[in-house]
Amino acid sequence: MKHAMSKTLAQQTASPTTLRSLLEPIQHELAQFEAMLAAELRSDQPFVDELVRYGCLIGGKRLRPALLLLAAKSVGQVREAHLTLATVVEMVHTATLIHDDVLDEAATRRHLATVNSRWDSEASILLGDFLFSHAFHLASTLETTMACRLIGQATNRVCEGELRQKGTRGDYRLNEAEYLAIIDAKTAELTACSCELGAWYAGADASTAACYSAYGRDLGIAFQIADDVLDLVGDEAAAGKSLGTDLEKQKPTLPLIRLMQLLDEPQRQDLIHVLENGAPDRQEPLLPMLKQYDAIGYAVERARRYAERARRRLDTMPASPALESLRRLTHFVVNRSA
Amino acid sequence: MKHAMSKTLAQQTASPTTLRSLLEPIQHELAQFEAMLAAELRSDQPFVDELVRYGCLIGGKRLRPALLLLAAKSVGQVREAHLTLATVVEMVHTATLIHDDVLDEAATRRHLATVNSRWDSEASILLGDFLFSHAFHLASTLETTMACRLIGQATNRVCEGELRQKGTRGDYRLNEAEYLAIIDAKTAELTACSCELGAWYAGADASTAACYSAYGRDLGIAFQIADDVLDLVGDEAAAGKSLGTDLEKQKPTLPLIRLMQLLDEPQRQDLIHVLENGAPDRQEPLLPMLKQYDAIGYAVERARRYAERARRRLDTMPASPALESLRRLTHFVVNRSA
Repeated sequence: MKHAMSKTLAQQTASPTTLRSLLEPIQHELAQFEAMLAAELRSDQPFVDELVRYGCLIGGKRLRPALLLLAAKSVGQVREAHLTLATVVEMVHTATLIHDDVLDEAATRRHLATVNSRWDSEASILLGDFLFSHAFHLASTLETTMACRLIGQATNRVCEGELRQKGTRGDYRLNEAEYLAIIDAKTAELTACSCELGAWYAGADASTAACYSAYGRDLGIAFQIADDVLDLVGDEAAAGKSLGTDLEKQKPTLPLIRLMQLLDEPQRQDLIHVLENGAPDRQEPLLPMLKQYDAIGYAVERARRYAERARRRLDTMPASPALESLRRLTHFVVNRSA
Repeated sequence: MKHAMSKTLAQQTASPTTLRSLLEPIQHELAQFEAMLAAELRSDQPFVDELVRYGCLIGGKRLRPALLLLAAKSVGQVREAHLTLATVVEMVHTATLIHDDVLDEAATRRHLATVNSRWDSEASILLGDFLFSHAFHLASTLETTMACRLIGQATNRVCEGELRQKGTRGDYRLNEAEYLAIIDAKTAELTACSCELGAWYAGADASTAACYSAYGRDLGIAFQIADDVLDLVGDEAAAGKSLGTDLEKQKPTLPLIRLMQLLDEPQRQDLIHVLENGAPDRQEPLLPMLKQYDAIGYAVERARRYAERARRRLDTMPASPALESLRRLTHFVVNRSA
């Protein structure tokens, strides 16, 4: 297991010109957020401290804090509350990632061993709970219950989305609408909430906050479709995480759903048979079929359309470098290898 | 697996005269709380709904809601906020139980199959998260952030206690003070918080609320010591849950810590050898030793002293049926078989 440095959005060099410049408007605030995250995730118990710091490293790309801070800056000023909220959403997201890695029995995340492979499932479960709890507690240090309420609503839907997804394991007749409803809940809810909180705490009115929320939702759906495509056809080395877990865990995602739709019933039954019984080489017969029916292309196109819709949600907002970054992020989420 | 009816405190008949009458002062409110809990844990997704309802059944003895409501009633009036808070603390507690059962690989809880044995670890992890999230969201529907803050603080300590306990697995030289610090965090924090919230939301002043919190803390410690004794020498049929998991998971608890203290070094090393290598019959050589050194008696006596101290914390409070129940509950928690 290679313990390479994990990379946040800010550190990624895949498309250096776009990506670095995207976060330029909130560079300073992202550094403050990182400091707050590190300060929050501290314990005087050595074992707890080690685990928690590791969990913080293994966290996401900082996409949600970036969205929150860019939304804030494009509406008005980044305030202390925004840094708190950015820390909260990242903790919630990291908690779900760590619990997901137990469920997926994934070995790698952001070029690091997952918590469950470095320690065990027990450590992962407890660390996820610790992060959830600290996130909610941190949200409660703000003046009103609004952030707690919005974040609580979002995490309710995230959890329900995860449970729904579990309920559809091995259901290869899942249709696109159900798939979209699941990723809307498990992924897009938190990106929508991040954008809404960013706008709201910068003084946005209700209709502006709703635009940001809609932007975050469409962006989250585009992001998740792209993520699911990566899980099927991505490169583990570039992605820095275990791939192919969706097939292994019998999670039907958009390319497969599309393929199923295009096959006739006997072909469909054959493929289901392969998917249900196939060992690790399940992908072999699948990939040529996905190609033949352009099912990957279809999914990528759907992701692009959500990304494009996200971009247009901000059309009426006043121009600013932060707004431009949000618009360009919609391009990034569907054109990434990690 | 027997799917007998699970029993709340109110339904237990072990010591019928005391127990039923203990909850008499809040009988009506407990019923309202049960209704709110059931209403909160509903989903229009059939799989989610089934799982969540089961989780609600498998929950605790409703000790924490009972403490919260009795504290409220002994201080003043039970209000709507108390019912909300009782639901919140029970959800948090149930979430930790469900995650604990994954960690302990326990098969039975409250005479029912645990979620992980009836479904799987994945269902348990997601259901626990769902309950945590709903608990925090529900707390945020109250007027101020106070409840969110107090509950967030408590769950932070609960999670830290669980992680500390994990860090001491197999450490048979753990001393009594460290053991007490761990159970103070993982168990007593939430019983203390329940009592404090009950008192506070009934209009208690700061020093009264602190008395209730101290009562809840001592009661929680007594409860956990008694629980750990039950895990060693209890009767599974009466307890309605898998026992012996502490030894299996190499969790040193008070009777064992006491025994280790009394042995000389060669005996201690012999015993550690047995505990580390022993198969399921680990208990066989241990039980006679625990008896010989009166280590169980010692632990029970410690539990009694905490219970007694809890009782005295309420000495200055004005007499009422609810207060009398709280005083008598201290007796119940150390003299139970389930």
